[in-house]
Amino acid sequence: MEKNPLIAVIGAGAVGAYYGGRLAQHGHDVHFLLRSEYKHVARNGWTIKSHHGDFKLPPGTMHVYDKPQKMPKADWVIVTLKATANDQFQSLIPPLLKENTVILTMQNGLGNEERLAELFGPQRIVGGLAFVCIHRLEPGLIHHLDHGYVRVGEFIESGQERARAISDMFRKSKVECDVLESLKKGRWAKLVWNIPFSGLGGALDIATDECLGSAEGRQLVRAVMEEVIAGARACGVELSQSVIDQRMKETSTMGSYQSSMQLDRQNGRPMEVEAILGESVRQAAAAGVAMPITAELYRLATVVNLAKCRERR
Amino acid sequence: MEKNPLIAVIGAGAVGAYYGGRLAQHGHDVHFLLRSEYKHVARNGWTIKSHHGDFKLPPGTMHVYDKPQKMPKADWVIVTLKATANDQFQSLIPPLLKENTVILTMQNGLGNEERLAELFGPQRIVGGLAFVCIHRLEPGLIHHLDHGYVRVGEFIESGQERARAISDMFRKSKVECDVLESLKKGRWAKLVWNIPFSGLGGALDIATDECLGSAEGRQLVRAVMEEVIAGARACGVELSQSVIDQRMKETSTMGSYQSSMQLDRQNGRPMEVEAILGESVRQAAAAGVAMPITAELYRLATVVNLAKCRERR
Repeated sequence: MEKNPLIAVIGAGAVGAYYGGRLAQHGHDVHFLLRSEYKHVARNGWTIKSHHGDFKLPPGTMHVYDKPQKMPKADWVIVTLKATANDQFQSLIPPLLKENTVILTMQNGLGNEERLAELFGPQRIVGGLAFVCIHRLEPGLIHHLDHGYVRVGEFIESGQERARAISDMFRKSKVECDVLESLKKGRWAKLVWNIPFSGLGGALDIATDECLGSAEGRQLVRAVMEEVIAGARACGVELSQSVIDQRMKETSTMGSYQSSMQLDRQNGRPMEVEAILGESVRQAAAAGVAMPITAELYRLATVVNLAKCRERR
Repeated sequence: MEKNPLIAVIGAGAVGAYYGGRLAQHGHDVHFLLRSEYKHVARNGWTIKSHHGDFKLPPGTMHVYDKPQKMPKADWVIVTLKATANDQFQSLIPPLLKENTVILTMQNGLGNEERLAELFGPQRIVGGLAFVCIHRLEPGLIHHLDHGYVRVGEFIESGQERARAISDMFRKSKVECDVLESLKKGRWAKLVWNIPFSGLGGALDIATDECLGSAEGRQLVRAVMEEVIAGARACGVELSQSVIDQRMKETSTMGSYQSSMQLDRQNGRPMEVEAILGESVRQAAAAGVAMPITAELYRLATVVNLAKCRERR
């Protein structure tokens, strides 16, 4: 890797602004691609309120762009687009690539690395899982409420040099980060939480405490988690059943939390139905295992998404 | 039947106030049992805004009560309780019964006649289906927006004398009413609409136009309707497949309509999950037919109901 690599962040919403911002705050050369907030951030920079310490990225201390064609070629491309915008990979990413550019996707759910690998070659792709409660309060203002650690792993699991490099970069920039032995296992493990709580939150508009507030709800969440573990096993990932008790316990003590899918629904934004629900059901089905409750949630969340989403490109 | 029968209306919400009110308006001797609105209605009567003509029931022109023990025994007991309150049959109805009292239940869904028959004898029971858009605007004020016709049939389908008698009474009181050849068939036919739109409305909080606004939604509604027709067939009721096209067409032209389950959800009131979804799934299953999507909706609506209902007795 370069000594002072040039980093491009594609789709700088809350997650991109925060993680790219931490890298910029610690001296890295970070270039952000924005869409709707470009003008505001170019003029005012970002303010980030974080439980790990507030910070600002004043205009002029980092580079912001409204078009990838205006950006320099990058050593690292960090993709923080919503997975609902993956149809933009082909227009946004090619202008940034040189021969050895590495692409780190920090998006939710399944299928993002696969799509990037198809388009740009599997050897470039690193996956990152962000365990973080963060959202945008208003243009230019990000609120990082809880957690924040990242786990990274290479798409081709034989070597982890680039994963270690990005992990080092994050750890020197106030972001806790470790390297996954298996990215695929990390993705499925995260889905044990995400599929029931994002699925029920998005489809039914109920928060975590409402999911867990009745015996019927707890049985349902457990049944979905068991489907995820069965789906993962079909895809070659062995997760311990004890993960279910752990996730149930953690979630029951975290109060009322609205998943990103629930918040997207409430705000008329597209929900990540395919990345979180659809792709999981499809990968498990292709490996011979049905996830019947998840499949029904997927179907219902699809109808809700089409009914509630007011954002059209 | 008596020439001027004494009629008791049990659970006078919007439906009870309207149909009992039409009978009272046309000279019948109607006695209403109320709960939370008793004091208000005793003092101020009811005002009913109806697309069939507004009318008032001033205090003194009809009889209102807060306890069934204070009421005279009735020739007719019309039950308009929400089906979620069926556990009150045993405390509310026995004080009103004499040997030949007939009980007409105008409640939603399946299982109401069966429960009343178990408790008070099947020979007493008549079922009524109200096709009506009506709700309470505020205490004492009912808004009847659309439709209003009633179909009645006896629980023991061999004779229809009492069904014809109540039908005549309604028809002379500005309520369109006909006699069903088969009450059971009428109930299942109504569920072809009610199960998808109340189920999706209650579980997902989406209105009829949102259910039908996408190809995925229309497919889902049709699939649920097909399950209802299969469930009905298992229970001995043959419904024409063409009912599906009819209901789809009618619903697509009626604008944005929120089912009673959706409104109950939004207002923190108990949803009629068991009468509309649970009992249908159970009766079909007992007859050897699974209704898999409906069963999943039932499960999800149960969790939502437990999460959102703030009304506790």
